This record gives sequence, structure tokens and C-alpha cells, in this order.
Amino acid sequence: MTRLNQLQTSFPDFGIDGILITSMPNIRYLSGFASDEPGVASLLVTDTAAFLITDYRFDEQAQEQCAASGTEVVVRDRAHETLGQTIRRLTSDAGTTRLGFEQDRLSYTQWQSITQDLNSGTEGFQPLSGIVERLRRKKDPTELQHMRKAAALADASLDQLIGLLRPGMSEREAAVELEYALMKRGSEGFAFPTIFASGPRSSLPHGMPSNRVLQAGDMVTIDFGAVVEGYRSDMTRTLVIGKASAQQREVYALVQEAQRLGVESVAAGIPCSEPAQIVARFLGQSPYARFAGDGLGHAIGLETHERPYFTDTEATLLEAGFVMTVEPGIYIPGWGGVRIEDDILVQAQGSESLTTFTRELIEIA
Amino acid sequence: MTRLNQLQTSFPDFGIDGILITSMPNIRYLSGFASDEPGVASLLVTDTAAFLITDYRFDEQAQEQCAASGTEVVVRDRAHETLGQTIRRLTSDAGTTRLGFEQDRLSYTQWQSITQDLNSGTEGFQPLSGIVERLRRKKDPTELQHMRKAAALADASLDQLIGLLRPGMSEREAAVELEYALMKRGSEGFAFPTIFASGPRSSLPHGMPSNRVLQAGDMVTIDFGAVVEGYRSDMTRTLVIGKASAQQREVYALVQEAQRLGVESVAAGIPCSEPAQIVARFLGQSPYARFAGDGLGHAIGLETHERPYFTDTEATLLEAGFVMTVEPGIYIPGWGGVRIEDDILVQAQGSESLTTFTRELIEIA
Repeated sequence: MTRLNQLQTSFPDFGIDGILITSMPNIRYLSGFASDEPGVASLLVTDTAAFLITDYRFDEQAQEQCAASGTEVVVRDRAHETLGQTIRRLTSDAGTTRLGFEQDRLSYTQWQSITQDLNSGTEGFQPLSGIVERLRRKKDPTELQHMRKAAALADASLDQLIGLLRPGMSEREAAVELEYALMKRGSEGFAFPTIFASGPRSSLPHGMPSNRVLQAGDMVTIDFGAVVEGYRSDMTRTLVIGKASAQQREVYALVQEAQRLGVESVAAGIPCSEPAQIVARFLGQSPYARFAGDGLGHAIGLETHERPYFTDTEATLLEAGFVMTVEPGIYIPGWGGVRIEDDILVQAQGSESLTTFTRELIEIA
Repeated sequence: MTRLNQLQTSFPDFGIDGILITSMPNIRYLSGFASDEPGVASLLVTDTAAFLITDYRFDEQAQEQCAASGTEVVVRDRAHETLGQTIRRLTSDAGTTRLGFEQDRLSYTQWQSITQDLNSGTEGFQPLSGIVERLRRKKDPTELQHMRKAAALADASLDQLIGLLRPGMSEREAAVELEYALMKRGSEGFAFPTIFASGPRSSLPHGMPSNRVLQAGDMVTIDFGAVVEGYRSDMTRTLVIGKASAQQREVYALVQEAQRLGVESVAAGIPCSEPAQIVARFLGQSPYARFAGDGLGHAIGLETHERPYFTDTEATLLEAGFVMTVEPGIYIPGWGGVRIEDDILVQAQGSESLTTFTRELIEIA
């Protein structure tokens, strides 16, 4: 069953007979049309067909990318037809009377304008949330191929960076070299703004690269990701410039063991809360309990942060094909922090880490 | 008068006594809080105060960045208070009864949730568009300093790339080197996805870098931008690999002259339609009239594409301090294209090009 068919099959559950998709990753997933720029296209899925509505600038790209999914490209002349009018024309032809829309991905202006054009009452245009995102949780072999490639790119790029790192280099300079390595190896961009935080700054979970210069004794946290065919990787490693102190070794070993426990607990059929609780319990018994970070990880795919999340209370059951990050951390203000993160594919039996870079403590001579 | 005061002074014109800002560039412009991630903060401006509403993760950053604007940071505990409840508490304290919101920058979900929490009727929460964007059109000396720096970075990076370009290199490889040069020189990222299109592909106005290999006789269109303190540059140059043919020279000279006419016509007090019409008339009389691109340019600043645009019908009068791109192009399907683009600062007398890279045709030996 194609992705579009899967979506159409779920329509009765939501009391709709069509849906307007405006999230760009969802449009890509269903139709093949790839753009990160919100608004350049919308996807209308009726009971029996799918229409990518765009304008002349993206016609050629859309024709090429939508062919495999059987999505029909509709070129709208923006000067003469509003998006709502195009939708009205297509839904009227298809006999669609209860159209859903993605309520988190439509602006107030768009909602108001389309509502006016459709003139179909509240039932005719219904807010919905997370429908396509649910389908996206289980990755298929093609998606996994892209995700493996993104993970491998990240592994190799970090390895290359470590050969370049030396005291005297700034966080910014180092981050630029890492990003250059990613691009040279074929990453389509960066999964998110690269985090590169050294010394006391390594206690900032989201420390952007600064002009701080690396020096002996620094812990360095590097959190970054590659993109392949839209699919992302997300990996964190923490290393030490020079020789690690006894306390640095102690904190590192603690996080390393927490991450191992978290990864080992991942399996199809367990709720997302379980790995989160296991790791929280382990770190909670350590002398660094009050410095442990919140949340253990998140799903990843066409977006860096997808649902479900690994939190204490998340009841969603893991299924084979989910890819989840496992990223415990200890963050000690004024001293520094350690985080280790991998992308874990849930399998029918156990799991597999897509990112494979060593989790042992690296000391940069 | 501060930017916040300017905004507050305009409240009566819109029948409001407060406004909720959710556009990240607008939040940055008014408060100083800098993030590209929608949703991590909102800015509530009342008659007498401004509140940046965020969560604990961004508290430290917000305190630091908002101090200069006098914006108070309000840390919301997302588990115990919705955004709407926080807004209700703050507006109730301030006596705000007619709150505006940015209708293009609020999702249906957010709008519905805040509307419910405020429970203040239609007049209590009013859709508005472009209020802060209007203030942002005239750049002040600090903004111009950042924009000059972004333009200079772009100039120097293109110069460096041209030293590296050679037949046999792919578009992708070349684009990666350009982006690396930008980052090494201190660009915070890229103003937009770099366009790098060679040979027949150069007729695509938005050609993303492909694996096509550069070869003698290719025209190459390069359109890219740097970012400094959030401010963008946007420049296009077209060059030839090897010796230019007679027709390549002819088309290039035509676009070069069109761009010169466009830039020369820019002056405070004229409507935006005037440069657009002058260039359209000039290209319309040429043998390549039917291959001329639409639209002559756009304003630029914290966003790459800001209003107003240079179109045939745009009545907005240029004012000193506006920065506008001038980017005519000829795009001949199957043959190739030429575009030349600079960022032009409107001055009280005449104008100044922030980007200064040569507009003469470059042939890559």
C-alpha cells in the first residue's frame, strides 16, 4: 500500500473525505515534492487522488518529483486564483465535502482565506493534528537507507574533525571545519544549527559555537547532524582537550553507562517511558543526580525532532522501524557537561545504532 | 525614539493598545532576542512595556539579549501555564483590552488556543499584518553596518571562489567551496540556499547546485548571501567558463546595461514601480524581450525577501535607508541565462551599492 493509500484509508477514522497538507516534510513524504520553503506548494488528497498545488516556478521540479507517487501537479496562477479557489474547484470535482487541514501548519491568514473561499461550514474544513506524522514514525527500507547514509556521513565527518582539533582553535573555527566536512561528503545541509561548546560552556545543552578558544583541560560537546534526501542524523560526542581529569573521567563514565543502559532497553513493544525511566533511575542514584538533563531523546526522520519523545510519561509503544535518539547528559554549571547521543533503529528483536562513532572518551593530544 | 516606542506610537492607528509579536525577525528587531526557531519566544508589547515570553531553556540568552531594549523576560513554565494564560495575566495587569496579533505568523492552533484563554471577544484579539515590517524598511546606522559587513563577506568569498573554479569541478563542489569561504570569513550561515547553475541549467532562476560538471563554454549563475548579526546580503553574478561566445557577450552586455539603468534610477522619493518599468522598457525593446525575468528586486534586511518589491505596479515611495536588490535577468531555455544582482542602499541623494564585486564579464581561464 502506498503512503497516499495509507493516508486515504485512515480518512474514516477522522470523519473526513479529504485533507489539505501544508507541512513541507509531510508533502515530501506523501508526494515526493521536496522543498523546505513553506508555502511554495500544498497537497490536496481526496478519497481517490492527490494534487500538488504550486505555481509555474516549481512546475518542472514538481512534475519530476511527483511522478512516482502518482500525484497530479496543478499549476495555479497566483494572480488569478487564490489557493482557496483552487481547492474549491478540485474538491468540488472530487465530491469532497469534509476536508481536513493541518491545524499546526496553517496560519490564521491562510485558514481565514480558505474558509471564506470554500464557504463549506465548520464541518467542511476541519482542524486535525499529527495524521501524517503518525504514518511517518515507522521508517521503510528506502528511508532507512537515507538515514544510514546520513549517519555514516556524520561518523566520517566527526572522525575527520578530530584529526584537525587542537588547542588554540576557536569553537567557531572547529564547527566550520565540521560543517565543511559534512558538505564535502555530500550532506545536503545541516540537520540543525551545530552545537559546539567547550570548557565551562559545555554545560549549555544548546551552546552555539562562540569565539572561545579551545585549551588543555576543556571538555568539548559536539552535537550535529547530516541530511541525505531530506533525512537527518543527530549525534553528540563529548571529548577532552589534553588529558582528562579524574572527575572528567568519572562524569564521562557515568553518562556512557547511562547511554548504554538506555540503548539496551530499546525494543519493540515497550512504552517510550521505559528507557526514560531506566536512565533517570540510574542517574538519579549517582552523586550527579541533580545535574542530569531532562528527557532522554526523540524520534528522528525527515525532521530532526519528531514524535514520540522518550519522557517519563510517554505511553506510545515502540515499533520496529522507529528511529529514536538516546542522549542522556550531565550538565554542571561552571564546570562543564557531558552528553552522548546516537540514533537507534528499533528492530523486531533488539535495536541497531545507525551512528557508530566510538563512545569511549577521546583525549585530543 | 526606540523601536519599541515607534511601535507603541502606532497603536492608535490600528485601534489597539497592545500587540503580540510571533515573527522571529520582528522579535529580534524589537527586543534583541535572536533565534531562527519559530515558537521559542513571543513578544508582548503593551502601551508602556514589552515582555519576552520564553521558557527556562532560553532564559539566560534572553536576559542578555533583551537588556538593551528594556524588554522584560518572562519565563513561562510550559507544563503549568499555556501561552494564552501568560498573555492574559500580563495584559490584565497592563490594562490592555484590544490586543493585536500577527495574522500571518500565528498558526490556527495557536490562534484558537490563545483566543480561548483570553476570552476577550473579536475586538480583544485582532488580526493585523505588516506593522513591524513597515518599521523595518528604513535601516538605521547599526543595521547598515551589519549589512555592509555581510555584503563585504560575500564580495570576498566570491573572489576566493573564482580563484578555485575550473572545468571538471561539479556545481555542488563549487557551491560547497563558496559556502565554506563564507563561513570561514564569519558568515553566520547562508541567507538562502545557494543557487549555482551552469550551462543550460543557468536558465533556471532558482537552480540548486547539481552534480553537473563545469565545462568550457558554460555560463554559470551564482546567487548567494551572507548573514551578519541576522542581516543578509544577496548577490548574483554570471560568468563564463573559458572564452565567451559572441551571443554570450551580447546577452551579458544587455543585462549589465539593464542592471546599470535600474541601479541608476534608484532614488529617494520615486515609487518602486519606476525602476521596474525603466528596466522592463529597456529589455522589452531588445531581441531577447520574451526571455526577460519577472520583477526587478526586493527589499532585504533581517529577512532575504522583505517588502516592498520592485514591480510594475508597486506604488510605495523609496526612502533613504531602504535597501533593495536590483536583479534583472535574461533566461533562455536550453541555452542558459544571465542575472546580475546587487544590494542598493537608497540615500537622500542617489544610492550606494553595498555589494561591490565587478559587474564586468569574467571568463574563467
